[in-house]
Amino acid sequence: MNLIYLLDITGTLVFAISGALSASERRLDAFGVLVIAFVTAVGGGTLRDVLIGSTPTAWMKDLNYLYVVLSAVIITYFFKVHLVKLKRTFFLFDTLGIALFTILGVQKTLTFGLSPVIALIMGTVSAVFGGVIRDILCNEVPLIFRKEIYATACVTGAAIYLISFPILGKELATGLTVAIIITIRTIAVRRHWSLPYV
Amino acid sequence: MNLIYLLDITGTLVFAISGALSASERRLDAFGVLVIAFVTAVGGGTLRDVLIGSTPTAWMKDLNYLYVVLSAVIITYFFKVHLVKLKRTFFLFDTLGIALFTILGVQKTLTFGLSPVIALIMGTVSAVFGGVIRDILCNEVPLIFRKEIYATACVTGAAIYLISFPILGKELATGLTVAIIITIRTIAVRRHWSLPYV
Amino acid sequence: MNLIYLLDITGTLVFAISGALSASERRLDAFGVLVIAFVTAVGGGTLRDVLIGSTPTAWMKDLNYLYVVLSAVIITYFFKVHLVKLKRTFFLFDTLGIALFTILGVQKTLTFGLSPVIALIMGTVSAVFGGVIRDILCNEVPLIFRKEIYATACVTGAAIYLISFPILGKELATGLTVAIIITIRTIAVRRHWSLPYV
Repeated sequence: MNLIYLLDITGTLVFAISGALSASERRLDAFGVLVIAFVTAVGGGTLRDVLIGSTPTAWMKDLNYLYVVLSAVIITYFFKVHLVKLKRTFFLFDTLGIALFTILGVQKTLTFGLSPVIALIMGTVSAVFGGVIRDILCNEVPLIFRKEIYATACVTGAAIYLISFPILGKELATGLTVAIIITIRTIAVRRHWSLPYV
Repeated sequence: MNLIYLLDITGTLVFAISGALSASERRLDAFGVLVIAFVTAVGGGTLRDVLIGSTPTAWMKDLNYLYVVLSAVIITYFFKVHLVKLKRTFFLFDTLGIALFTILGVQKTLTFGLSPVIALIMGTVSAVFGGVIRDILCNEVPLIFRKEIYATACVTGAAIYLISFPILGKELATGLTVAIIITIRTIAVRRHWSLPYV
Repeated sequence: MNLIYLLDITGTLVFAISGALSASERRLDAFGVLVIAFVTAVGGGTLRDVLIGSTPTAWMKDLNYLYVVLSAVIITYFFKVHLVKLKRTFFLFDTLGIALFTILGVQKTLTFGLSPVIALIMGTVSAVFGGVIRDILCNEVPLIFRKEIYATACVTGAAIYLISFPILGKELATGLTVAIIITIRTIAVRRHWSLPYV
């Protein structure tokens, strides 16, 4: 089990917990919470896999994703009160999650022989569309379309990765990209940065 | 034409009629009703096919599904008043439909060499996601996430099928699964069973 | 670069501008506007490609679609006020767009060896589902399900193309289909035609 895989699983866990928390706030039942947690965690990667033609999707071939989501729902059920207090820790893991999902999405898209521009888009799709599908299922306008949180950090990170990867190699490029995404998002949240309206 | 196929077509007809009825209650026009009836009937199986990589989807290769949905919309147009009175008969057919869709979804997923756990999930997806997509298109939080109706029956049925199939063979396992799904749903509705909140 | 391709790109541009305009009315930020413009322009074709199994989708293999959408968002940003005044011109281009998308969808589906009935459906999906996905993302009941605008024109146009293509050849059949779709839509809008309720 390599580092990337471990981080992928960590990202999945954090996204699933955040999905389960937001579903339980909306008074969905246990089945609804499970579906929303699952969709938040694997929805972005699934959409990417369907669009690039990599089916069956990743979570069908490796059941660990599923077990991680189930664990996340159980953790949320027992530690809901405590989890809500851990906002700061969560923010860090969540940002780590989007950074990793972006990089994994870029890598996988390049593996399919698609252009770097498409890899950049698919990296962003992997990181943000889980949340978009969650919001659609919960009948809300996706948060990410109204207020910048993730998108710019993902697009910038994906671009940094694509440029630095041939120069620095996989490990260093990953580290650099993660650092930049975390920096952008932390500053963005602290300074209330947001994208202009068109 | 074997029994499974006949039941599949029956399930499609019942789901399409239920979709057409709920669309016409929402004051959609004829095109909207047709699309909603179609999506309710074949949406779950289509999502399953896209995720496991079985494209073109089933209804593209066998036009009978399409003709059944068209018939369902015409039947609904002419017999709307009578259909609403047939609630009890409908409930039985609808439950038969989800039972069959669950089993067909499990079987097809196993055919693609995926694990029984994924087959269980895809069986449930086949049975319930037609209704989920219908609710999203009608701009509502999917009913199934708020109040348990189908999901537990499908998951239990899929598990029963997976366990009994190697022992009893296809026919007997199908019969047993259908009986158990109908029993669970009937009791659930009578006793107002619902899943706990997380 | 042939005529069909030029018209496809024109259709994409017009659909993207109309998506960007409707997104900016909804007070989405720059990222939201970009995504909605993209989805409106390529969403119908993408759904068609996923369903018939033609992945990676068209816009992944030809970056011009992406650049056209980016241009559309920039044009919308600078000329928003003027574009709103050009309603009449837009209506013509938009109708040309749906005519072309219908024909391209029919052609591509036939290329995959699917039946003419499925080609007719997929032609309509190509033309109208971009708008459906846009409305879902914006949390509205898709306009097309409530009030006939496009659908009948697309279905009729697709049928005309399928019948005339073997007799008249590609070019003449395309011309005839475009003319008929524009005629139906223009008359429909002028005379406030709409589909009956079921």
